[in-house]
Amino acid sequence: MLVHAEIVTIGSELLDGAHADTNSLQLSRWLAELGIPVCAKCVLPDARDTIAEAMRDGLSRSGLVICTGGLGPTWDDCTREAAAEALGSRLRRDPRMLAHLRKRYRGRPMPLANLRQADRLEGASWLHNSCGSAPGQWCPAGEGRVIVLLPGPPRELESMFRQQLRPRLQRLAPSKPAVRMLRVAGLSESAVDDLVGELCRNPTDLQVTILATSEPAVELHLHGQRRAADQLARQLQKRLGSALFSRRPETLAAVVGKQLQEKRQSVAVAESCTGGLVAAQITATAGASGYFSGGIIAYDNEVKRRLLGVPDAVLRRHGAVSAECATAMAQGVRMRLKTDWGISVTGVAGPSGGSVAKPVGTVFIGLSGADGPATVHALRLTGEREVIRRWSAHHALNDLRLRLLGGVN
Amino acid sequence: MLVHAEIVTIGSELLDGAHADTNSLQLSRWLAELGIPVCAKCVLPDARDTIAEAMRDGLSRSGLVICTGGLGPTWDDCTREAAAEALGSRLRRDPRMLAHLRKRYRGRPMPLANLRQADRLEGASWLHNSCGSAPGQWCPAGEGRVIVLLPGPPRELESMFRQQLRPRLQRLAPSKPAVRMLRVAGLSESAVDDLVGELCRNPTDLQVTILATSEPAVELHLHGQRRAADQLARQLQKRLGSALFSRRPETLAAVVGKQLQEKRQSVAVAESCTGGLVAAQITATAGASGYFSGGIIAYDNEVKRRLLGVPDAVLRRHGAVSAECATAMAQGVRMRLKTDWGISVTGVAGPSGGSVAKPVGTVFIGLSGADGPATVHALRLTGEREVIRRWSAHHALNDLRLRLLGGVN
Repeated sequence: MLVHAEIVTIGSELLDGAHADTNSLQLSRWLAELGIPVCAKCVLPDARDTIAEAMRDGLSRSGLVICTGGLGPTWDDCTREAAAEALGSRLRRDPRMLAHLRKRYRGRPMPLANLRQADRLEGASWLHNSCGSAPGQWCPAGEGRVIVLLPGPPRELESMFRQQLRPRLQRLAPSKPAVRMLRVAGLSESAVDDLVGELCRNPTDLQVTILATSEPAVELHLHGQRRAADQLARQLQKRLGSALFSRRPETLAAVVGKQLQEKRQSVAVAESCTGGLVAAQITATAGASGYFSGGIIAYDNEVKRRLLGVPDAVLRRHGAVSAECATAMAQGVRMRLKTDWGISVTGVAGPSGGSVAKPVGTVFIGLSGADGPATVHALRLTGEREVIRRWSAHHALNDLRLRLLGGVN
Repeated sequence: MLVHAEIVTIGSELLDGAHADTNSLQLSRWLAELGIPVCAKCVLPDARDTIAEAMRDGLSRSGLVICTGGLGPTWDDCTREAAAEALGSRLRRDPRMLAHLRKRYRGRPMPLANLRQADRLEGASWLHNSCGSAPGQWCPAGEGRVIVLLPGPPRELESMFRQQLRPRLQRLAPSKPAVRMLRVAGLSESAVDDLVGELCRNPTDLQVTILATSEPAVELHLHGQRRAADQLARQLQKRLGSALFSRRPETLAAVVGKQLQEKRQSVAVAESCTGGLVAAQITATAGASGYFSGGIIAYDNEVKRRLLGVPDAVLRRHGAVSAECATAMAQGVRMRLKTDWGISVTGVAGPSGGSVAKPVGTVFIGLSGADGPATVHALRLTGEREVIRRWSAHHALNDLRLRLLGGVN
């Protein structure tokens, strides 16, 4: 049986913009480990009718509705009552649970408010709480469907999930699904779609997602039946060619670092418009000192001239944003830092500084190595200043990766 | 009229347990600033019928349903179609939007996939996107109710909300509550709590939130009755002293940039463990070329020696992670780049490279200016590599800010 789950998180404080709902993220992760896909999540206030409606909607779509929160003793907690309303069932005070709750108070009188925590739905079984007072409930809803009530405090939620709920869900869940990830460099989300979209539409036994990350690499996620996932991953790999830079959650800079380590080569950077972003991405990987010597951030033309040795004539004739300047910067930093490779970036990040010939988004990436003459990659990027800077840094790293692969830049 | 909102976040990747839905949290915060309470949120996969059902349910409960995500060009994006289904309305390709989208490609052919982004619901108005291709839509749903479609990428969402949606919502919203923001530098979240916590607990007519940002500055938000907010803001300002760096949503690097501009002074950076992060933060502000000349990323000791002039004896006797090296780096970069100020950072970011005397998290920040001898700030930071790097960059900028204020470093 293929089980799908929905998660209902309950708590008015989770709607005010100051508190994140971390419980549903944790639950999704644990359910994914069991091979149970989550097909919807919602966050609701402590309002009985709204919660009951969401439970009924959830049951109509999924076999499993997991609720967290609203099991406390205070007046605003009403998840038990909402479940009774959704299932058309009644709550009965359980004397054994009452005795169990009283034991927690070790002789002191239990607050009256806590009595409610011993109210169980007809037909439901208790899920014991080893970290707090609120017990959970496993409530069969007919036709193999279930509503599960779990407490809101994250520690209580986690221990109850692991100790009480997971064993029950393992009996329901199918074999664990396969997950495949493909990370793509140098292409925008829509360019990736144009390239592989037809392979990804409506695959059988698979869910395929395309995702633009802030790195900014594009990610493809395949999720579902193992053989189908492997087959599509192979097709995508073939179609993407060298644009595919990793099948693991690692950054482009980390992949370039591994290439350099394998070849025992080193790199230095000369950055103008990216102002340190390329270097910051390279050094985010632990162990970067093994292949990264350093760099020169040449924001000022005077720094380009003096520290990188960009000829006066180049700056006068072609300007700082030019293929000629990018070449001189890449060669200059490679010579001065005595590395195998030099990467340079110079461009107009905006919002001002553009011209008709060189509008905002005009960027030149230079690459100098011992394997041949320096090359330049001219880009025309669109978007805000930070978007242009990030894509420039991304292309700079990707150009080095492709050259290290032995491919064409 | 009192408006309530529901938020529908769309994206299959947000249900797999690997990606958090941060958009709905941001939206709740911005809506709270407008005095619009959120009465439910949900996260749905890219599935047309499910999204349409949630839109209809949302409209039946609230006057305003705000959707984010699923407006991209790729095959899985179907929010436009879902809205058409929910409203019983049709999509029509808008030739003016098509022309606008084509302009983004500056002569290159637009991928065919992007055509769909010009499909507008009958009766809807466009919400323009200044950061990406996907336009949003404002879709009247009768009886004063509205469905709003916003893009999923956080940067696009934010700019569209601020520029396009907020002005429209302000017309619907009741009297706006006062919002005050205080940005604090150089202190962790718990240090800020220790300092001002007693002022912030249980104020009348106010909601106070403390927030650790990834920048990593700490933010205090006051939200509620105007006079109470102003009074508490004054008390906090007094207590925080020079740790308060701004009362607006601007970065620490932007504030330092304004200080330098006012004094007509310039700065250069010499970075080791931060590897370009300080420079990248400075240059994220447009116009940074007015006060930032550039920098030297001296990851390698050889680069510290040759390009920054750090004496051999300092490296041999004290090592690269030392107060002496930080001083020499700051002085060296100021001299070589001929700026008024030189900032340096050298330290052990980890996870390896630490020792008993200099454990991971040992960082020295040097500051050299014409106003006196160079100073050094020794830090012992905790956390992961990237946390240590970010806090190091933050302290480096903050040390310059305090020195420019004329305060004690």
